[in-house]
Amino acid sequence: MLIILKLGGSILSNKNIPYSVNWDNLDRISREIKNALDYYKRHNKDIKLILVHGGGSFGHPVAKKYLKIENDKKTFVNMEKGFWEIQRAMRRFNNIIIDTLQSYDIPAVSIQPSSFVIFGEKLIFDTSAIREMIKRDLIPVVHGDIVVDDNNNYKILSGDDIVPYLSKELKTDVILYATDVDGVLINNKPIKRIDKNNISQILEYLKESNKIDVTGGMRYKIETIMKNKCRGIIFNGNKINNIYKSLLGLVEGTKIDFS
Amino acid sequence: MLIILKLGGSILSNKNIPYSVNWDNLDRISREIKNALDYYKRHNKDIKLILVHGGGSFGHPVAKKYLKIENDKKTFVNMEKGFWEIQRAMRRFNNIIIDTLQSYDIPAVSIQPSSFVIFGEKLIFDTSAIREMIKRDLIPVVHGDIVVDDNNNYKILSGDDIVPYLSKELKTDVILYATDVDGVLINNKPIKRIDKNNISQILEYLKESNKIDVTGGMRYKIETIMKNKCRGIIFNGNKINNIYKSLLGLVEGTKIDFS
Repeated sequence: MLIILKLGGSILSNKNIPYSVNWDNLDRISREIKNALDYYKRHNKDIKLILVHGGGSFGHPVAKKYLKIENDKKTFVNMEKGFWEIQRAMRRFNNIIIDTLQSYDIPAVSIQPSSFVIFGEKLIFDTSAIREMIKRDLIPVVHGDIVVDDNNNYKILSGDDIVPYLSKELKTDVILYATDVDGVLINNKPIKRIDKNNISQILEYLKESNKIDVTGGMRYKIETIMKNKCRGIIFNGNKINNIYKSLLGLVEGTKIDFS
Repeated sequence: MLIILKLGGSILSNKNIPYSVNWDNLDRISREIKNALDYYKRHNKDIKLILVHGGGSFGHPVAKKYLKIENDKKTFVNMEKGFWEIQRAMRRFNNIIIDTLQSYDIPAVSIQPSSFVIFGEKLIFDTSAIREMIKRDLIPVVHGDIVVDDNNNYKILSGDDIVPYLSKELKTDVILYATDVDGVLINNKPIKRIDKNNISQILEYLKESNKIDVTGGMRYKIETIMKNKCRGIIFNGNKINNIYKSLLGLVEGTKIDFS
């Protein structure tokens, strides 16, 4: 079973404080991932895992320095310095995350998209090495990054761009979204389940309620699971044991099933 | 004009001292590259540059810990820890090199092969992003790295593996090998020129004289330039101004011409 676990930038860092790490969460999340891997091992069940994380407080403040927005058009400027500065900031964040995972004996390795991805009309992202890694039970940790586009400029490839692409390419069974809320909320309560029976109703609701869609790109996450015809959960990664439970399919949150 | 400059690990670090950096050389080399780029700019001449460096004192000692040699067969073991440890060591070296280049306003960016390369029977190495980078006058700094193979194990992708591949893929005009010797030496003197007229004689000599071939893989470097039907120089990167001169085609060393 192939699982993609997306760790929201907001649970690994404080987006308002540049270069901040939420060490308590990172440490706890690492331990919970390790416990889940051990559970699968003890029960002789196969699990392949890919972790995806965003820029958090590392990528965003640096990227902002080089982003120019004119007439709603985003372009990056001064990238002879900026490309490396963003790359380096993301490397630093990714290093911290992998070092912590490794300290719990999780076989995490790094995937740095800026080295090989083009994000233009289509996304060009060779997953051959990632496939070989999961075959060997390594756990690729893919991070949001600055990448070249196909129009002589640059784009941010976010964690939320990476998840749907990898899901499709690698035929993922389960997508887990660890966010800082309890799921897809309606009147502050998480919807228990989204499937073909209530999806149009829910997308309609999210469209009207801009506020919800902006915080966490819920609509995009739901559509990703829908388009990939797989299963997933959007849950609160800040709560103790939720990461562990999510990997075992037991977490409270919004379950989404299009499998 | 596209130039690949290979910086030998032995001129950027002391291979006998783990994690050592030859700061004087790194600083001088960065300044010389900057001077050469400025020269081309002043003369309105186009130059595209790719830098390649090996593992030096960072990659080798770590890789050694995980390498098992039995009956001449090399395999990597304990790679659930080792892959990341080698990745991280190479990242650290690459960070130091790019930070120094950037401090001289050289638009260097990082290419980390372990994220996307498979080195099996064939080398699978998507150069799409590198092409886009050089179009924007960024300077990709590609480093030797640990990569997956196609046989459920791993391989070191060395700088000397990267250079011929990129040369062919990107149709490189000039390959510059900055080594710690004055060129291809015969009786301690560098051969001035290698071309179609003396190549068989020289390869014959190198075959007999194992010692020369081992120090720096000279034979491999010559064959790379020959197969790519391009021009190149093998020269001493430890000598002041040689990097600058090499980029202008003026350095003393062994000139190789199969263009």
